[in-house]
Amino acid sequence: MSPSPPTPAPAELARAARAASRTLQALPSEARVAALHRVADALLARKDEILAANAEDVADARRLLAEGRLAAPLVDRLVLTERKLATLADGIRAIAAQPEPLGEVLRRTELAPGLELTQQTVALGVLLVIFESRPDALPQIAALSLRAGNGLLLKGGKEAERSNTVLHRVFTEALAPDVPAASVGLVHGRAAIADLLALDDVIDLVIPRGSASLVRHIQQHTRIPVLGHADGICHVYVDVHADPERARAIVVESKTDYPSACNAMETLLVHRQAWEAGLGPALCEDLRAAGVTLFAGPRLAAITDLPPAESLSHEYGALACAVELVDDVDGAIAHVNAHGSGHTESIVTADPATAERFLARVDAACVFHDASTRFADGYRFGLGAEVGISTARIHARGPVGVQGLLTTRWVLRGHGDLVAPFSRGERRFTHQPLD
Amino acid sequence: MSPSPPTPAPAELARAARAASRTLQALPSEARVAALHRVADALLARKDEILAANAEDVADARRLLAEGRLAAPLVDRLVLTERKLATLADGIRAIAAQPEPLGEVLRRTELAPGLELTQQTVALGVLLVIFESRPDALPQIAALSLRAGNGLLLKGGKEAERSNTVLHRVFTEALAPDVPAASVGLVHGRAAIADLLALDDVIDLVIPRGSASLVRHIQQHTRIPVLGHADGICHVYVDVHADPERARAIVVESKTDYPSACNAMETLLVHRQAWEAGLGPALCEDLRAAGVTLFAGPRLAAITDLPPAESLSHEYGALACAVELVDDVDGAIAHVNAHGSGHTESIVTADPATAERFLARVDAACVFHDASTRFADGYRFGLGAEVGISTARIHARGPVGVQGLLTTRWVLRGHGDLVAPFSRGERRFTHQPLD
Repeated sequence: MSPSPPTPAPAELARAARAASRTLQALPSEARVAALHRVADALLARKDEILAANAEDVADARRLLAEGRLAAPLVDRLVLTERKLATLADGIRAIAAQPEPLGEVLRRTELAPGLELTQQTVALGVLLVIFESRPDALPQIAALSLRAGNGLLLKGGKEAERSNTVLHRVFTEALAPDVPAASVGLVHGRAAIADLLALDDVIDLVIPRGSASLVRHIQQHTRIPVLGHADGICHVYVDVHADPERARAIVVESKTDYPSACNAMETLLVHRQAWEAGLGPALCEDLRAAGVTLFAGPRLAAITDLPPAESLSHEYGALACAVELVDDVDGAIAHVNAHGSGHTESIVTADPATAERFLARVDAACVFHDASTRFADGYRFGLGAEVGISTARIHARGPVGVQGLLTTRWVLRGHGDLVAPFSRGERRFTHQPLD
Repeated sequence: MSPSPPTPAPAELARAARAASRTLQALPSEARVAALHRVADALLARKDEILAANAEDVADARRLLAEGRLAAPLVDRLVLTERKLATLADGIRAIAAQPEPLGEVLRRTELAPGLELTQQTVALGVLLVIFESRPDALPQIAALSLRAGNGLLLKGGKEAERSNTVLHRVFTEALAPDVPAASVGLVHGRAAIADLLALDDVIDLVIPRGSASLVRHIQQHTRIPVLGHADGICHVYVDVHADPERARAIVVESKTDYPSACNAMETLLVHRQAWEAGLGPALCEDLRAAGVTLFAGPRLAAITDLPPAESLSHEYGALACAVELVDDVDGAIAHVNAHGSGHTESIVTADPATAERFLARVDAACVFHDASTRFADGYRFGLGAEVGISTARIHARGPVGVQGLLTTRWVLRGHGDLVAPFSRGERRFTHQPLD
């Protein structure tokens, strides 16, 4: 393993990423695609180097685990294997195989004869992605960014420092000769983040992937737009018309499949009649059997012995959740819109009109009918991968893949056209859609 | 004129707009369209009331003008006429006639048999639009917002206070019975803005329309995303292959048609050989003849007597501009990317390859070939109207019409689907595009 070169200052890295993104955008599609295939090859060819660095990170993490200073799931997520690298390489080839995202024509209009306006997709610019722990995120995010022609700055967690450094080196060395290595910059040290968050003239979008406290810290310390979500307060609403078996399966999976995921259920809402008919208590029994601690909202607390929930806007992120009664689907919609975080909301009902009412009126990035909240994910949605899930209303919403890393521009091609003849009424706008 | 009811607190107005936007989104398209036609009718039917209030604003403004405390163009922009109201009503009917923007399906995917994902357009939520002087902006912005199902808070300039109050009353009274009046709130007093800018949990987007200092003030005082532009530093680049007549017409119009507009030219870039061949001096002569004061960039200052420009990143916003030499189209691209504000950039050249190089490599919301920068405008682009022009890279870029006031959501319709069978390999994602 060769020694790391001295790290440039964060602002320098950012400006280099801006310049690199302009070079990238001027390259033909095939050049960006070929570079991604070289990256996929390199991840396999240089696996020994990658796994050796990862083994050092994992050994350190196990020591911290033994000392009780790190949680076991964090260690598991840190581990890279030959199989994980093969999956990563496949994922990068899948991103390379997606249709060319740049230069897509969204709208073409003849403003007047000989004056044609095109709205087309272009790269967003420079992204800063801050991610915790899982080192396989590095090549995934870098591949999505490169496919979309963006410059990228990455800041990983310190537990994965050695793994990230080698993955970054392997990725960027595979970009030569035509794609600039500066397209993907790796930033070291916590202090660098503060410097980067001040560069609102160079960085176009910040994507924090990690704990709610990380995301909130970023949101509060930058004027750069932030894409992501601080909270994932997701609900499953079990209607009076719910199929009981579907309800039981969806509720249990939504809570227990991966309790710390942002798309896990945090509050179960049950139609009062479904509760009285016995489905509510059965759902609670299922959850308890799966190890889930239950807390009651005020209406349910009045009729059961469950301990009261301190808040109905709480993300447990663990094997615990709140349960509350609602009178009908409108009560569920009102509850979700008041307490949810706009992430993922699911209704279980066999009545199509009730389902459509919920889908239309719940205000969230993802709204589901008779499906587990765990489907809210870029890979499962068919986006190839995701750089994160956004609960913001502007720009990209929900799981964000390549499409969320683009912007648009307007290209007008004329023949010496002036506005004066239009102002004087000598020429008229046709505004004719083309294609 | 009936007395105004007591104004509710800004936070109350904002929360009412959020609730109203949810009602609006649940209304059928026809209800929102019919309300816009009622608004158009009311603007004509109640013209005496509107023009009387406007006459009072104009009289006050004329007094300030006589005292030298207000500029003449501001007074002109304040004046409403019967003809302007008719144009406004027509514009609102045109917005009503646009294809329904809500619920448009952007992508439909079969994730697996029986599990269908739809990405569709939805309203953005609640907008805050701060605009100066021109009262006809009020019904235009309100119509665009309503068409897109959004709640809206408007804050106008104090010179137009009476006009805005009556226009707002006429607009909202025409919404009854099915569209809530709270869909469009009018905010009074400068202090209210600070309160509103703090409501990042209720307001989704702020659109400041006005001076660069207003926009910068807003950007620096809120965590709500801001759509707009502080600067409009637009260039026209006259290439060595430019048609001289086209160049002269485009340069003069881009600077002089409306010098204070954001899409007016602030810097003229001339290919060195075009300068030496005499086209550069001719362009300067034309501009001077049109009353434009010229300042030279450092390279031009070395060979002419023009006074040096203090900065090449300056928005004159008046009959003045900078002129600078570049060696070729790549020099022009580098200059624009270094000094432009990403608004509107135009090249004049008869060489298609040079034009395409400029269009592809200049990083701006609008890039033009052989056309006046003054075409950068929502109406001229065929968007019906605009709430503003954005130089941000995220969300909407360039002139923003109804499409820029939308977001998307993901709707998943299943039949009791869980992720577990996919994780276990018993089911496979098909990710089949539908339609």
